[in-house]
Amino acid sequence: MPDNRLPFDGARVLADLNALRAIGAYKSGVHKPTFSEAHMRSLEWLVQRLPEAGLAAEIDGIGNVIGTSIKTGPKLLAGSHLESQNYAGWLDGPLGVVYALEAARVINSDGGANGAVEVAAWCDEEGHFGSFLGSRSYVGALTEADIDAARDRGSGKSMREALRDVGLAGRPRMRAEPGRHIGYLEAHIEQGRTLESGRLSIGVVTSIVGIWQYRISFDGEQNHAGTTRMDVRRDAGLALARFCVAIDDQFPKHGGPRTVWTTGRITLDPGAPSIIPGHAEMLFQIRDDDPGVIDRLENLLRSMAQEVTAQGRSSVAVERIRTGAPALMDAAFQQAIEAASLAVAGGKSIRMPSGAGHDAQILATIMPAGMLFVPSIGGISHHWSENTDDADIVTGAQVFVEACRRLLAG
Amino acid sequence: MPDNRLPFDGARVLADLNALRAIGAYKSGVHKPTFSEAHMRSLEWLVQRLPEAGLAAEIDGIGNVIGTSIKTGPKLLAGSHLESQNYAGWLDGPLGVVYALEAARVINSDGGANGAVEVAAWCDEEGHFGSFLGSRSYVGALTEADIDAARDRGSGKSMREALRDVGLAGRPRMRAEPGRHIGYLEAHIEQGRTLESGRLSIGVVTSIVGIWQYRISFDGEQNHAGTTRMDVRRDAGLALARFCVAIDDQFPKHGGPRTVWTTGRITLDPGAPSIIPGHAEMLFQIRDDDPGVIDRLENLLRSMAQEVTAQGRSSVAVERIRTGAPALMDAAFQQAIEAASLAVAGGKSIRMPSGAGHDAQILATIMPAGMLFVPSIGGISHHWSENTDDADIVTGAQVFVEACRRLLAG
Repeated sequence: MPDNRLPFDGARVLADLNALRAIGAYKSGVHKPTFSEAHMRSLEWLVQRLPEAGLAAEIDGIGNVIGTSIKTGPKLLAGSHLESQNYAGWLDGPLGVVYALEAARVINSDGGANGAVEVAAWCDEEGHFGSFLGSRSYVGALTEADIDAARDRGSGKSMREALRDVGLAGRPRMRAEPGRHIGYLEAHIEQGRTLESGRLSIGVVTSIVGIWQYRISFDGEQNHAGTTRMDVRRDAGLALARFCVAIDDQFPKHGGPRTVWTTGRITLDPGAPSIIPGHAEMLFQIRDDDPGVIDRLENLLRSMAQEVTAQGRSSVAVERIRTGAPALMDAAFQQAIEAASLAVAGGKSIRMPSGAGHDAQILATIMPAGMLFVPSIGGISHHWSENTDDADIVTGAQVFVEACRRLLAG
Repeated sequence: MPDNRLPFDGARVLADLNALRAIGAYKSGVHKPTFSEAHMRSLEWLVQRLPEAGLAAEIDGIGNVIGTSIKTGPKLLAGSHLESQNYAGWLDGPLGVVYALEAARVINSDGGANGAVEVAAWCDEEGHFGSFLGSRSYVGALTEADIDAARDRGSGKSMREALRDVGLAGRPRMRAEPGRHIGYLEAHIEQGRTLESGRLSIGVVTSIVGIWQYRISFDGEQNHAGTTRMDVRRDAGLALARFCVAIDDQFPKHGGPRTVWTTGRITLDPGAPSIIPGHAEMLFQIRDDDPGVIDRLENLLRSMAQEVTAQGRSSVAVERIRTGAPALMDAAFQQAIEAASLAVAGGKSIRMPSGAGHDAQILATIMPAGMLFVPSIGGISHHWSENTDDADIVTGAQVFVEACRRLLAG
């Protein structure tokens, strides 16, 4: 391999991120649902950039892009994702992909440096069609039947149809080659306020919390909103509202210091202004890195549901639809990020768990994995106004490249 | 007019209702949204039946059917509607149309009887596209611009497009001929439990309550459900749930004895399991026949909203989107129904307000109007399991025909 070194270039990192922001722009953020035109153009953009880093790739049969190197020596896999939540931020995903691209450019072009960085963009980390479909495909944890069953949570379009529409149907899916990589490194915005409020530059992720998700269903009696007296109503929507409030009153007494819980969606059936809802549903989520805490809270939820059902107005059913497992980040990766932060960012780092899920938790099932966070302004996330100071973006990139170098140096 | 009398026939009434139930059947009820194929076939069915009663009609430019008589003497208008709520009951609407048809058959074929009954099926009483569009068109309270603006609340399809698709675009709309009718009579299932629990046969409607409707909007801060600590969240969905519960706690202290209130729809924005809702909305309705009670409750609602907003986590906005006005039923019509009930049903009737809205409240703006209720089993309404005993259906029809005869006799 010729030695035509590309030194680290913070302006190039910012330019790449802004190029990706321009594809599918929405206000100061982006709208790039999985397999949207803007998402596909972003993947193409990456495929065209990878040769600058001595990497070759095409989009695989699940929508992953994985740039591979022919350089000898150890290989580190690095990346994140390019699709976004609907009308959401420009850095959630692209930051980690562009950091990986920059690390690959700097390290792979350095004939003197040891090994290579390989770059991945995992498809559908944001879960439009499922749960980490891209990275699960790569680690071998996604069957053809899983793909058959996957549907867009918004439009209901099947994943098979979406793959056909974007021309990926029938392409092979890339699988991890056992022993190829020394591990996986991912950078991401923090999506919280820990770094900002502590005036820190880098978060060294210790673990990724598990997500437990529940469908909580309420059955009462559908009836006419004008002719049914208040005292005989069995309003499933009202039962749901009372349940939400009860959760908010009870959970703080039984959760851990970092437990979070969220009702993200509510549906009243039939949802008409003149009909008392006979059925209602809420999507409810709990996150913690301690499964013992989750056990306690799930028991609480079920006993609260039994209590409401016993009162007789509405019945409540709690169904767990997603079972999380906290993922531990590799100790050597944590040390490498901390040392890199000390070397190029004055050591302004903190060890912290990730409250959000990331592809690193999937990769961690087959290889050592690590994650690095940069600050989020105001902690805003999953919204188009999400942002990070340019200076923090560049510092994070520097730490990321240095961490890759240290990991490859062994 | 030849005198070829058709005596009252309860079996014919039941057969007609079952014929209408067979069109668009769903379980033991029907699914006939406005302008659906089943709704249009039901209107055609009526147009073909009307000549049996000496009436002629076609479907007009808004989807109304109004059978007119050439018989001399006073004329009474009677009817209801043929479309249904989605997946709802078989009698809500058709009962009043078939009673009117039976009264017209019996009275119009009787050369000795005074005057005629004319039969109406008003379009979209159930409000798929708007609010009483058919009867408002007939009384002259619906502009072309209103029709331009009307959209199906489910699919979003415009009313103009729907009218084109069913072949009604460009047809004239029938308008009430001033002085033609001595008034309007409508029969309907009670949709409540007053008659059933009192073992009564007939409800004599005194007034139709007004409906006030509100959009209540909550604004907080959209954020990531995993990375945002509980103590810094501004969850609009939780604010909404707390507001629903507060309404349920406060309203009983400030409402009247018959006030009812309902939250029929809740939307969390963006509605994803991993995002804290930044915005939430509920459709909220209050019904009462005393506008003073409504004033008091609306003031309460607004002060509750101000209080939540002042607490600073989420802001709440209350917007009135529908303003009701109670409609009084004509005293002579109430007396005629009561007398008819005494004559043919042993007088097992009660005077009562209607908690539901009906086309009679629209007709009442231009002519005397009256309404008669028959019992609903279990008070169930707006659900496919809605039902009434056959015996009660036949008794109601007898009282209806007798009331028509008495009203026409003056």
